[in-house]
Amino acid sequence: MEQLSGSPRARYREQVRSEVQAHAWEQIAEAGAAGLSLKAIAKHMGMTAPALYRYFAGRDELLTGMILSAYEELAEVVEAAANEGRPGMAMALRRWALANPQRYLLLYGTPVPGYSAPPEATVLAKRIFAPVLASFPADTTQERSLSFWTRLHGVLSLEIAGHFAGMGFDTDAFYDREVRSLDD
Amino acid sequence: MEQLSGSPRARYREQVRSEVQAHAWEQIAEAGAAGLSLKAIAKHMGMTAPALYRYFAGRDELLTGMILSAYEELAEVVEAAANEGRPGMAMALRRWALANPQRYLLLYGTPVPGYSAPPEATVLAKRIFAPVLASFPADTTQERSLSFWTRLHGVLSLEIAGHFAGMGFDTDAFYDREVRSLDD
Repeated sequence: MEQLSGSPRARYREQVRSEVQAHAWEQIAEAGAAGLSLKAIAKHMGMTAPALYRYFAGRDELLTGMILSAYEELAEVVEAAANEGRPGMAMALRRWALANPQRYLLLYGTPVPGYSAPPEATVLAKRIFAPVLASFPADTTQERSLSFWTRLHGVLSLEIAGHFAGMGFDTDAFYDREVRSLDD
Repeated sequence: MEQLSGSPRARYREQVRSEVQAHAWEQIAEAGAAGLSLKAIAKHMGMTAPALYRYFAGRDELLTGMILSAYEELAEVVEAAANEGRPGMAMALRRWALANPQRYLLLYGTPVPGYSAPPEATVLAKRIFAPVLASFPADTTQERSLSFWTRLHGVLSLEIAGHFAGMGFDTDAFYDREVRSLDD
């Protein structure tokens, strides 16, 4: 069971904020991240828009909360697999991305017009990258880590977007080959 | 000069349709593909929405027209570079993608919720892929062509989305290395 912390008032605030985020993820699935509307979420939750604005100052703050929580989730997933080496981290990334395509695409897909992520997002992105960097020999670290990232993202993003549908090849095996393409 | 064809009426129709598409590309840049609104475009063009619906039956038909014209453009770009081999095709793809990020992301980025591209899109996607397939030895064609596609897309999509900002490496050289990673 999750441990409760803070005052009842703070807990209630957290509860409302996560309920708003849950509605926002549904909206993203239905209308894309660019179509997020706090007004529509307020209506769904039976609140007035001004009441909702006490929890999120606007679309950008809501998006930031979602992006940071998705990065955080992915960082934990990758870190938990770090002791299984690159193949383990790559498989953990793939499982997470296929199970959470909206989250994956919000982090790494088409940018939301007019939105820029805050510096905290870069910090989390680096945290995800750290165990990958550590897995390569020091003299080739940056070069091979970058290739590792772009090669896996290339497969995952096209797969999630449906581009492999009907192409009749084994996507698991293909992904695995790309993962191992950077082995010594 | 472009050659005129068809009746004046047909030419006028084509002219209005391309003007609508031009407005739609602007909308995509500002609000994302999921935010396309025929009503807003009609307003911009000083037309009524019902008048505009005589040119495009709805958002999906408009999106389809844009996707097919972007695929067509890219197919011509890749075909024109086919005689320069894979490095030439890869450079042509990169130039086109960086010069037309909205078009690139509409084809290969986050899918537009609720929209499915028609079979003609798959035909064009295969046409783009054909000179790449032809560039590899027959026994490894599919495997290496797929890697070629996903590796280049991995770099281009993350670069266009701004993920390399501030990372301080030479993206041209990195892309080139990924292009050559599949050479014999």
